[in-house]
Formats: sequence, C-alpha cells, structure tokens
Amino acid sequence: MNKETQEYRPEVAEKLERVGITNLRTLVMTGFGGHMYKFVPSFDVFIDLPKDKRGIHMSRLVESISEAVNNEAAYKHETFENLERDIIEQIWSKHPFARVEVGLRTALVVERKTPVSKKATMETHDVAVNVICENKRYTKVLKVSVIGNTACPHSKENTDHPHIQRAVGELEVECDFDKAINLDDMIDCVDAAFSSPVYTLVKTEDENQIVNKIYDNPKFVEDVTRGILDAAKKRFKGCKIRAKTVSQESIHRHDVVAEGSA
Amino acid sequence: MNKETQEYRPEVAEKLERVGITNLRTLVMTGFGGHMYKFVPSFDVFIDLPKDKRGIHMSRLVESISEAVNNEAAYKHETFENLERDIIEQIWSKHPFARVEVGLRTALVVERKTPVSKKATMETHDVAVNVICENKRYTKVLKVSVIGNTACPHSKENTDHPHIQRAVGELEVECDFDKAINLDDMIDCVDAAFSSPVYTLVKTEDENQIVNKIYDNPKFVEDVTRGILDAAKKRFKGCKIRAKTVSQESIHRHDVVAEGSA
Amino acid sequence: MNKETQEYRPEVAEKLERVGITNLRTLVMTGFGGHMYKFVPSFDVFIDLPKDKRGIHMSRLVESISEAVNNEAAYKHETFENLERDIIEQIWSKHPFARVEVGLRTALVVERKTPVSKKATMETHDVAVNVICENKRYTKVLKVSVIGNTACPHSKENTDHPHIQRAVGELEVECDFDKAINLDDMIDCVDAAFSSPVYTLVKTEDENQIVNKIYDNPKFVEDVTRGILDAAKKRFKGCKIRAKTVSQESIHRHDVVAEGSA
Amino acid sequence: MNKETQEYRPEVAEKLERVGITNLRTLVMTGFGGHMYKFVPSFDVFIDLPKDKRGIHMSRLVESISEAVNNEAAYKHETFENLERDIIEQIWSKHPFARVEVGLRTALVVERKTPVSKKATMETHDVAVNVICENKRYTKVLKVSVIGNTACPHSKENTDHPHIQRAVGELEVECDFDKAINLDDMIDCVDAAFSSPVYTLVKTEDENQIVNKIYDNPKFVEDVTRGILDAAKKRFKGCKIRAKTVSQESIHRHDVVAEGSA
Repeated sequence: MNKETQEYRPEVAEKLERVGITNLRTLVMTGFGGHMYKFVPSFDVFIDLPKDKRGIHMSRLVESISEAVNNEAAYKHETFENLERDIIEQIWSKHPFARVEVGLRTALVVERKTPVSKKATMETHDVAVNVICENKRYTKVLKVSVIGNTACPHSKENTDHPHIQRAVGELEVECDFDKAINLDDMIDCVDAAFSSPVYTLVKTEDENQIVNKIYDNPKFVEDVTRGILDAAKKRFKGCKIRAKTVSQESIHRHDVVAEGSA
Repeated sequence: MNKETQEYRPEVAEKLERVGITNLRTLVMTGFGGHMYKFVPSFDVFIDLPKDKRGIHMSRLVESISEAVNNEAAYKHETFENLERDIIEQIWSKHPFARVEVGLRTALVVERKTPVSKKATMETHDVAVNVICENKRYTKVLKVSVIGNTACPHSKENTDHPHIQRAVGELEVECDFDKAINLDDMIDCVDAAFSSPVYTLVKTEDENQIVNKIYDNPKFVEDVTRGILDAAKKRFKGCKIRAKTVSQESIHRHDVVAEGSA
Repeated sequence: MNKETQEYRPEVAEKLERVGITNLRTLVMTGFGGHMYKFVPSFDVFIDLPKDKRGIHMSRLVESISEAVNNEAAYKHETFENLERDIIEQIWSKHPFARVEVGLRTALVVERKTPVSKKATMETHDVAVNVICENKRYTKVLKVSVIGNTACPHSKENTDHPHIQRAVGELEVECDFDKAINLDDMIDCVDAAFSSPVYTLVKTEDENQIVNKIYDNPKFVEDVTRGILDAAKKRFKGCKIRAKTVSQESIHRHDVVAEGSA
Repeated sequence: MNKETQEYRPEVAEKLERVGITNLRTLVMTGFGGHMYKFVPSFDVFIDLPKDKRGIHMSRLVESISEAVNNEAAYKHETFENLERDIIEQIWSKHPFARVEVGLRTALVVERKTPVSKKATMETHDVAVNVICENKRYTKVLKVSVIGNTACPHSKENTDHPHIQRAVGELEVECDFDKAINLDDMIDCVDAAFSSPVYTLVKTEDENQIVNKIYDNPKFVEDVTRGILDAAKKRFKGCKIRAKTVSQESIHRHDVVAEGSA
C-alpha cells in the first residue's frame, strides 16, 4: 500500500501561502452566448499549506482540472470564471485548503471591422482570468493585454513630427465573482485609449485613416494609461482597476512605462 | 524654443503610481571588496506623476543613470544599491517626485569549489536589486534566483526511486537601505535548500557525490521553499523574506510551485 | 489615387530571399477525421522579392490568410498543410513570387491513457507546419516538440543512482506535400524515445510505474535523439528526418543537447 | 573505478552531428585594444559523435571552457573568437571529434555621441560569435542585432504621414578565422541602414534631429535589409553576408520581416 508522504510533519514548520501547479496546458471549451469556443490555456492552481503538513497532493489539483474540463457538458461553462469555479469545487471535494486560486492565460480572438474598407478582421489578444476563493468568498481578477501605439506629443509640438511606436496596454479588473465582466468590453477600453486602434488586416484606405488618426491624436504612455483607467472606471463601476502601458520606443533601445490604479 | 508638453494639464486628471523607463541596458562597474567588477544590467526607473501634469521628463531619468554610471569614479559604488541610491540622488536634482524606484537585473558570477575534486567552478545566477525612496526614506529589495534540484520523497518512499528534476529557487529580502545584505549569502541560503547544490563543472567523482546526496536527501518543492525561508530568517533577521521554488517535473509536462513568506 | 511605392526601383538592387509577415495570430479551424478542431496559431508568410522592386505588398499576404481561414467552409481543411496550400493559392492570385513559404506554430492537444490507472489524460505539444512552394513544386516540413525525460546511464552505472531530468525532444520531417504525415505519429516517435513518456494526469500507481520505467531504462540525450531518428526513419520512409533533444540537467545549471539527421 | 558508459556501443548506430552543452553562462575577460573587458556570455559547445560510441564526455567540454577562461592571463584573448579557438584547442587535447563548434552570445556596450548635444551615450547590442573547426580548418560566424526604426514610405507618400516603429536589424558575417572582423563595424552597418539610428540618452535637441531624419528618410524593412547588405558587402569583402530586419509594426499586431544574403 502506498504511503502518503505528504501527510508527514515537515522539518521546518512554516505555513506556505501558495503551493500547486503552473503552466499546465489543456483543452478547454466554453459555451459563451450559445456558441462553442475552444482554447488551449495555461493553467495555474495554488492552495495554501498549513505548517504541520509536509506537502500537498499535487495530482488532486490536476484531477480537478481534468474533471471540470474533460466532460461532454464542458461547454456548459459560459465563461472562463465559471469553469474555474467548477475546478475549485472539484478541489473542495478532494483536498483541504483555506485559500485557493485558479488562473488561466490564453489567446482570445475577436472579430472587428476595418475602419474604412469595413472588412471583417480577426484580432487576437492575450487574456488572463483568475478566480480566488478564501473563507468561502469568491472573487475574480480579469486581465487583457492589447497591442496599439503611441505618437509622441512632445516631438509633434516641437518638430511637427511625432515619433510613433507600438505600445502594449494592459487592463486588470478585480471584483466579486458574480459581477458580469466581459473581456471584450475590457479590450475596447484599451483599444480606444491608443493614438489609434490597430488591425491585422489593413487595406491602403484603412492605413491612410489609421495614420491620419495617429497624427491627429498624439499620446504619451501616460495619456494611454489614464485613458484606460478613465474608460474602465466608468464601465466597471465598483471594481478595482489597474492599467499599464509599455511603449516600444522607436527612438530608443529601451521601453517607457506608465502604470496606475483607480 | 522647445515646448514642455509634459507640463500641460492632462485630459484625465488621474495620479499615476509608476511612470518611467524599463529594459535600459548599460555598462556598470562596482568596487565590491576593493575589486572592480563589470556588469551589463537591465535598469528600470519609475517615479510617480501627480494628476495635474501630463507627463514626466523621461530623458532626465536616463541622464540620471548615465551620470551615476558613466564617470571614472563609478567603481566607487561598492554595491548595486549604492549605485542605485546615487541614481536616485541624481533624479532628485532634476525632477520632482514623491516616490522613486530604481531596479536592476543582472547575472552574478560567484566562485565555488566542486564538492570532491575541489576544482574552482564559476556559478552564474540571476539577481535583482531594487531601491525605493518614499518620503525620503530609503528601502531595498534584493532577489536571487538559483538553479538546483528536487528528488520526490513520495516516489522514493513508494518505489525506492525518486523522480528527480531541475528546480529554480528564489529568495527575496526586503529591508532598510542601510542593512548590509550580501547577495552571495542569499545564494547560499537557496543552494543549501535543494536536494543537492549543482555545479557547472562536475568530474565523475563529483557527480557520484552529488547524485548520492540527492538520493539521501529527497525534497518536495515545499521542503525547498521552507528550507530557504528557515535559513533566510536566521541569517537576515528583521527583514521581510519571500521564497519560491519551481520544479520542472521530469514526470509531467507542467511545473510545480511552492511559495511562502516569513 | 494611392501610389504603389512598393513598385518603385530600390536604391540597392539586391534580391531578397524572404520578405513577409511574422507572428500573426488568428483563429483557424480544421476538419481532421470529420471532427472540427480550433486553433489560434502564429503564422509566418514569406515570399521572395526581385532586385528591381522596392517592396512587397504586405497586406495581400494578410488578406490571403484571411480569405483561406475566415470562411464558413474553413473546417474543410483536414490538415494544417491543406490550409496553408490554400493560403499559397490565394497569394498566387494576388502577388507575383518565385518562392513562397507559409508556416504556423500552435499547440496540439492529444488524448492518451495513463499507463496503469488507464484514465484519459490530455497531453499538449508544440507543433509547427510549414509549406513551401518553389517552381510550382510543393514541399512541407512538420515539426513536433515533446516533453519527456532522461536518466543518466553513467551515474546509474557508477552509483546505481541515475540523475534524472526533464528533456525536450524534437522531430522534424521534410517531404513532398502529398505524402501523408500524421503529427500524432510523430509525437509517438518522440514519446517512445525517452526513459519514460510523461503524463499530465498521474495517480500514485501511474507514478510508480513511470519512475520504475525511468530507472530500468536510463538514456543519454544521445540515446533519445538516436531513438527518435530510428523510429522516424522506419515510420516516415523517404523523408528527410532531423531530431534534437535538450536535457535540462538536474546536476548542472546548463543544458545538454544531441542533434542528428537521417 | 568508474566506468566509461559513454564508450559503449549504442543501441542505434547513427552518427550525430552536434552533441554538447548549451546555455552555459560564465565570466569571460577579453583584452581588446589593450583594455580589459568583462562579459557573462552564454556558451554553446558541440562536437560530432561517431555511430559506434554511445555518448560524448560532456564534462570535458565544460572543463575546456573553464581552462581557457579561468586563468589569470585570460584577458590575453583580444577577441571572442580567439578565446573560442583556445577552447577548441583545449577540447582537442581531451576529446576526439571530426567537427567542433563553439559559440557565445553576449551583450556588447559601445560608446557613441548623441547627434546634436554631443553627449557620450552607452549603446548595448546583442552579439554572437561562433568558431567552427572542421578538418582542421577554422571558420567563424559573427552576428550583431541592433535596434532602430522604420518609417513607412507608402503611408508617407499617400498621407504625408509615415507610420513609424521600432525595428531590429541583424547582420551575420561568415569567413575564415583569420580575417579581422570588428563587431563595432558590423553594428555601424546596421545602425546606418535605419531611417535613423537611435540612442539611449536623447535630449530635446537630439530628439528633434532624430525625428526629422526619420521623416526625411522613410524606409521599408526591405530598404533596411538591402542597406545592411550593401554596406556589409563593401566593408567585409570576400565574406558571406546575411541580413534580416524585423519591424514591430505600429499599425498592426504582427511584425514584418525582410531577409537576404550576399
């Protein structure tokens, strides 16, 4: 019969806040809005470990993901956070803990129209959704990372020639589990804060409109981050909001950053 | 005459916590223990921005790094944190702020002896040193990331055959600026917590000793993290300690993690 | 009317071998074996540029991906290479070239059974599929990257204690477009070459079998690479085969590598 | 007495082209132009393995690096390639091979003047130097990767507003070992091919000159790659030249690439 080494007393009696698995990739289905979507996210699952136990039972965390994910009714999960709550409920039945955190990182593809030619274009963004359960209270943290641009207001004013560059804007929203937060709406908040949104498919007439918009709308990283914060505060009332923009400067080898919260 | 667009009022009146530059790589010299060392770290410098200013003057942050780093007396800085305090003092003279944070990430090479053949071996670790100044009070956060291994006590007990894998241990120490903390001592705390320390140069007699030590000393990631916490608490009294171990499992595609603080 | 700057004569009259787009992520469907699968790959598309043209029309490459991918019959593509040939045919109708290369990198999830408990487990691997068309002849290069392990025969023989570590095995198969090559079979060739295959989900009885297998079956990276080559030569006759294994040593900070072709 | 498992016959009798170590980081000194420089490169060392031997003796490769690097006269190596030839000579005395390849990747800091304010500025670039010895003939491959920018000639012509972005230019030069090739000259070839070189330290008067130069000098990635090829062909006569530029588009989420050789 197998021994449960994890249940032994540890040499050093310290509580550990987060013990678990990271970078586990598996197939996930969601049934958002009645449509079935598939993803291959990277999962993290952490629980706390009391000071009198040597280890956690890692395989029970993996099993909890498997059981929540790999059943034919899996696409019943409308959102990532619903799936993650189910994983937490599976863990609940298998392993004691005081606090649990389940997170996933994946790519989300959304459809947009190009600004002038009005063609359909698929835009891909990195998103992350974490659900935390502590003292039986569920909260969640959603994050999107969106590519756009900045055009320097300082060089525009001094030379009429803004330097322009790719920038990456991030928005994080933290709130109670039950509050409905749409990742697509979060992406919109970031997209609208750049000098111009960008598109995967761009015809010459779209390109002309985008560059004209960039030139009419110069932005520092500070402006982009404040624009994200302002839009997110209005749209996601009662949530904790964090925003960050990193600009891959075209006149420097280093990047510039602006970060804030509201 | 050039206009200072940064001084204008922003459209959105939000304070920003961290605005600045990231991933700036430059040459640095330190004069630790009377010897001159050279590094090419990546720097981050962030200050806060009040809600009534549109932007910070990024070039003043770069100049502050240049002036602290590029003078012939640069190797007068015995430690990274001394250099960073000088950068902060340069910023102080050029740009208003309420809070500033200067960080660097680099590779530190330390000399060790192989365990049996007693040959000199150079071991390279990732380190990071951040200095924060808020309300004129200086604090610092030092971090080391050290490669080692775990050998599973559970599979050892059940099959006499532990699965073994590379693991990465991290130790972070936060304290007042003036407290002397040696990165090399921090590395020792992590090295000693693994099933065995590892070495770049290993002769057969060393290899035999290392693998025997691994087998006699099986460790979960939880054990390694607790070992780091225990050693660091004793050595760095009065500091905030955080430790984390990630094990690149040899029987799984995902990693396992244990994280704690003391 | 818009000008076609790309058609101008360049200042430097050099032919360029590969001009195009990289890291374009979009949604893709395949209809492999009658089932519909979804992926979000990263695409690369390159064509050559003659010495008398200043540039290529980048947007036509993006459009070619969009048109092949974003139509309701998209899941008609049974394989990635069929989809890529359709992209090439779209480019053919929009842009002159002598040579074209379309590649995608994505994560492939395959179902396996755990070795003892016989539970279903989902295993995720990185794969890449490139289709090249030159002088109207289509060829393809398929690549899989699979996580496994090595157990050192040298330390096993000298101490009875092999050091064990995660290893990553890669197999690349190059052949005519029409030859049927199954990515799943390629994954099997790599999986079988390790000391033991690994699994995402592992119960204690599986873990026992896996570690016993590792101990009975010590392998250098050289053994793994040769095992992949041997299996692939037998299974994919008439193809060019390349294999590479990287072992994340548990007794060193560096990695070891073995690479060969057949 | 220890057994030499590596000398056994392998199960699969395949020759392997490249067997060795990768990502080994250690301290290196060079004595270029009479000054002592220090680096912490990542090393790769590969030799071939005949079909009748099971493995190579990995520790002899590590020892060869140690012996060439860790002696007091180390800064006698004027260049990276001299150091690497010494490593090869060490391997020569310890391990049989038909072909050997020693490579290192590191960051090189060079001093420049800002274009208008004429301040000293330190610029950091990624470089790689490989030495290959086959049939007793030594050759080398040097590579630099330099950050700059592109400004789109197409959008400039159609809207008077070029979109601008960071671009990374790469130059690779392959030649006989004895040919003197200066990494600094290679960096100059790439720097000069962008719409404008970029600088770490930039005062407002420099920024004005840089952005004006970018606007007067729009470049596609194709133009940058051809400019690198043209300059390198003239400066490094008789060498094989490869160039590649990747542009991190400010109006797209993907990158664009141009690659050529001469």
